[in-house]
Amino acid sequence: MESIVGDEAVGRLTSLDSEEVYSFQNYALTVAYNGAPFCGFARQPGQKTVQGELEQALRTVFGSEIATVCAGRTDAGVHARGQVVNFLAPLQPTKPKTCDSLRRSLNALTDDAIVIREVREVSEDFSARFSAQAREYRYFIATDPTPPLFLRDFSWFMPKPLNVDAMRQASAHLIGEHDFKSFCMAVSAVDKPTCRYVESITFEQSTIMGESVLVMTIVGNAFLHSMVRTIMGTLMMVGRGLREPEWVLDVLLAKDRCAAGENAPAQGLVFWDVRY
Amino acid sequence: MESIVGDEAVGRLTSLDSEEVYSFQNYALTVAYNGAPFCGFARQPGQKTVQGELEQALRTVFGSEIATVCAGRTDAGVHARGQVVNFLAPLQPTKPKTCDSLRRSLNALTDDAIVIREVREVSEDFSARFSAQAREYRYFIATDPTPPLFLRDFSWFMPKPLNVDAMRQASAHLIGEHDFKSFCMAVSAVDKPTCRYVESITFEQSTIMGESVLVMTIVGNAFLHSMVRTIMGTLMMVGRGLREPEWVLDVLLAKDRCAAGENAPAQGLVFWDVRY
Repeated sequence: MESIVGDEAVGRLTSLDSEEVYSFQNYALTVAYNGAPFCGFARQPGQKTVQGELEQALRTVFGSEIATVCAGRTDAGVHARGQVVNFLAPLQPTKPKTCDSLRRSLNALTDDAIVIREVREVSEDFSARFSAQAREYRYFIATDPTPPLFLRDFSWFMPKPLNVDAMRQASAHLIGEHDFKSFCMAVSAVDKPTCRYVESITFEQSTIMGESVLVMTIVGNAFLHSMVRTIMGTLMMVGRGLREPEWVLDVLLAKDRCAAGENAPAQGLVFWDVRY
Repeated sequence: MESIVGDEAVGRLTSLDSEEVYSFQNYALTVAYNGAPFCGFARQPGQKTVQGELEQALRTVFGSEIATVCAGRTDAGVHARGQVVNFLAPLQPTKPKTCDSLRRSLNALTDDAIVIREVREVSEDFSARFSAQAREYRYFIATDPTPPLFLRDFSWFMPKPLNVDAMRQASAHLIGEHDFKSFCMAVSAVDKPTCRYVESITFEQSTIMGESVLVMTIVGNAFLHSMVRTIMGTLMMVGRGLREPEWVLDVLLAKDRCAAGENAPAQGLVFWDVRY
């Protein structure tokens, strides 16, 4: 195994051990995962993470260390259906791989809770993170009087009556470009920009496998640490009648995490899609 | 704890230890469960079963042994959304219970993989088994090229192309009253009636949590041991192009389990509903 330095600008990799220069291919993966068994997406020494699993599989396939870039680093317990990950893979010394064989290899080499849904060859300037125009998250709330069975691992069980119209009214205050500091984990908001653009928040009542769910879909350019779960927890205060819809505007203007509601549980959240 | 003998005809229970006669209430439960952790529905000594869990909870609630009757005994690994279970509960010496408090108690006392969705008081002549007019099962086939994530525990992963029209044609041969001996686990068909009435079999392609599924819904008056899974496995042979639709008629007429396809996996099957 050799150390390799990626240079996105020129689309070439230079081995540190020699002056040999060889080309690489930029691949993008669409990845789904059940977040339950992982300490989040981002690699952490000694912890089981999605990125750690992917990079270990890539090391096995390509025989060298390969760093991945993702569209959004999900927290422990948060799921994904359409996470996008890209990486530069050396075309030498291993044989070129088809996208299909690479997908099969990665699925075979990673934990069952990770599914590599698609592998695409992308141009060398594509970045899963920086090329993303919009990200979509969905939050699933199980609303039947008894706990969900099929959706148990992928929802927040909330058997209390919810005023969905009030939640919709409240969410309207969050649409557009705002400083979302109140909705960001405090330690992550220190000396960092906290303005984000939220394109839409919608609520849809539906039935999945016979179980009643309220699905919140939120689309934005990017999200701060815990932002979707804090928004969900805050809107839930309104839905349960503990706060008026207008309170959400006060929370936004406070620019203080303490002003918002508690984080909604991680297991109800799914990183759904990325628009490029 | 005392032994109690139920007498459905008169709606009374007689304690064996005395001549005391007291009344009872017939309750019906609608029960959902994830079949994975259980050795099927029916109680078995030393095994974890759904009926065993329910009867243990009832013993705790009522302080006496209570036998339950179910609409359909599901096999190990088969799930339920609308299993119906009834039992006669003594109104003495314990206090009468509301349906809601009984539901809460039973949910608290049973495994998390069991959800008692509803408790109803029913007339004394109601039997979950014998009063049933029709039973509905659904079978979920995950058809995306990569394994399902949200539906992983509740579907059969079948990434190969399926001819759904051929499956529909094949299923038409099974509608109506037939001897389904070919579709019954052989050991269970010995010296027992194997005629059943299948009311309908439909196939619907849908998307659940973003994952493509083909759902077979089958309704009939009653089903033999493994009958739905054998039908599913047999129709799958047609769907995959390994047999013609007309072959299913040959299977039916053979009255021999060896003529049919393999059982579809238990985890894709859900006992969905019962019509009374």
